[in-house]
Amino acid sequence: MADLTIANALNLVNDHSTLEVKNMSSNTKPSIGIVGGTGDLGRGLALRLAKAGHAVLVGSRKPEQAVEAAEALTAELASRDVAHQPIEGLDNVSAAERGDIVFVTVPFGAHTSTLESIKHAVQGKVLVDVTVPLVPPRVARVQLPPEGSAGMIAQTLLGEGVQVVSALQNVAAAHLQADMDIPCDVLVTGNEKTARQSVIDLIEAMGMRGFHAGLIHNAAAAEALTSVLININKQYKTHAGLRLTGIE
Amino acid sequence: MADLTIANALNLVNDHSTLEVKNMSSNTKPSIGIVGGTGDLGRGLALRLAKAGHAVLVGSRKPEQAVEAAEALTAELASRDVAHQPIEGLDNVSAAERGDIVFVTVPFGAHTSTLESIKHAVQGKVLVDVTVPLVPPRVARVQLPPEGSAGMIAQTLLGEGVQVVSALQNVAAAHLQADMDIPCDVLVTGNEKTARQSVIDLIEAMGMRGFHAGLIHNAAAAEALTSVLININKQYKTHAGLRLTGIE
Repeated sequence: MADLTIANALNLVNDHSTLEVKNMSSNTKPSIGIVGGTGDLGRGLALRLAKAGHAVLVGSRKPEQAVEAAEALTAELASRDVAHQPIEGLDNVSAAERGDIVFVTVPFGAHTSTLESIKHAVQGKVLVDVTVPLVPPRVARVQLPPEGSAGMIAQTLLGEGVQVVSALQNVAAAHLQADMDIPCDVLVTGNEKTARQSVIDLIEAMGMRGFHAGLIHNAAAAEALTSVLININKQYKTHAGLRLTGIE
Repeated sequence: MADLTIANALNLVNDHSTLEVKNMSSNTKPSIGIVGGTGDLGRGLALRLAKAGHAVLVGSRKPEQAVEAAEALTAELASRDVAHQPIEGLDNVSAAERGDIVFVTVPFGAHTSTLESIKHAVQGKVLVDVTVPLVPPRVARVQLPPEGSAGMIAQTLLGEGVQVVSALQNVAAAHLQADMDIPCDVLVTGNEKTARQSVIDLIEAMGMRGFHAGLIHNAAAAEALTSVLININKQYKTHAGLRLTGIE
């Protein structure tokens, strides 16, 4: 019986969620702002980043919707019984100001105006552009902008004071939101290697593999692939993803 | 002993190469012209298509180089001891004229002039554009043309009388040439579904999976991905490939 008690004590010490809570009480991981965070992709990112130990600031043009989303996401994590950092809802500019790293995931039609509204707030930071330049109603057709990609637009508009990294355009929002292994790798582009690496670290913390895929010019590849995947999803009735082969 | 003799006889009848040779003597599969067929990718396609039972016409601007390539490829298949259809070397226009289906795999700098030279020869046919719009020396940087993609340029230049299909930009030439399973899926784009399907059939005959990926506009995705893969190959010292997940 004594042995069992010791075993129980060890189990407690080794209990995964207990340790995570403990770590999170002295959290030093960067906080994450998610501009446009009430959309399907933003919600999936918020869930996984909060679970990975990052305080998450969910932004929206309509702060009351961000508050609602944050409450729903917190409830979802509670229902899964996992330790996590807090998720807070607020307006887009505040999310951009308070996030150490800032994700942007907005419809392409709102991309430029959103970036202009947070341009000041994100100076000196890594900005992760998840925006895909889809042009409704033909979202299954590649229609890249004359600038080459949303990523290129962001880097040009925000200037050299912001390290723009483009990533996560090919992951299904439904997969991000679900409590599951994600069958999709992530191509990560951007002009600064250290910025790319910090985003790859976040991607790995969210349970995926991320790969250095070149300068921000190369954002065009992942952005174009999204329309191809939408096309394939329709035809093959699936959530298709992407795996790189030849890399361990 | 009698049983053994019967077994041997059965083995002979079931011998794979014997059967293939037999089939090939009454070949009804479409012949394949490969314009620019002396390059690394063209050679890999020629090997696999000849082995899959298609007569192959390797084209080059310099017919004597095409003849040399055809001889070398024939010797390679002989050394592997596999049944195959003949590989013949000739000039690009003749390869385009004689091929039932015509592949084009040329440096992007020669893309437009090559297409103009074969425009008449390929009317009414399926043309498979494998060209990637790389701009040396920065081949690891996505630099899609203003028209959107090489595939779009081809369809516009050749006109509606030609069914342009874009494919095979992401497969490593070294993998195509080697006697191995290829760890890469193929995105197949083009405006005509039947034309796409005929190319998917060829891709499967060459040992890969091909997927309907939308109209020719979507060629941009696979073309852009090539620069990303070149980038990844350099960094991770590999021949990276691509697999779609979520599709059986």
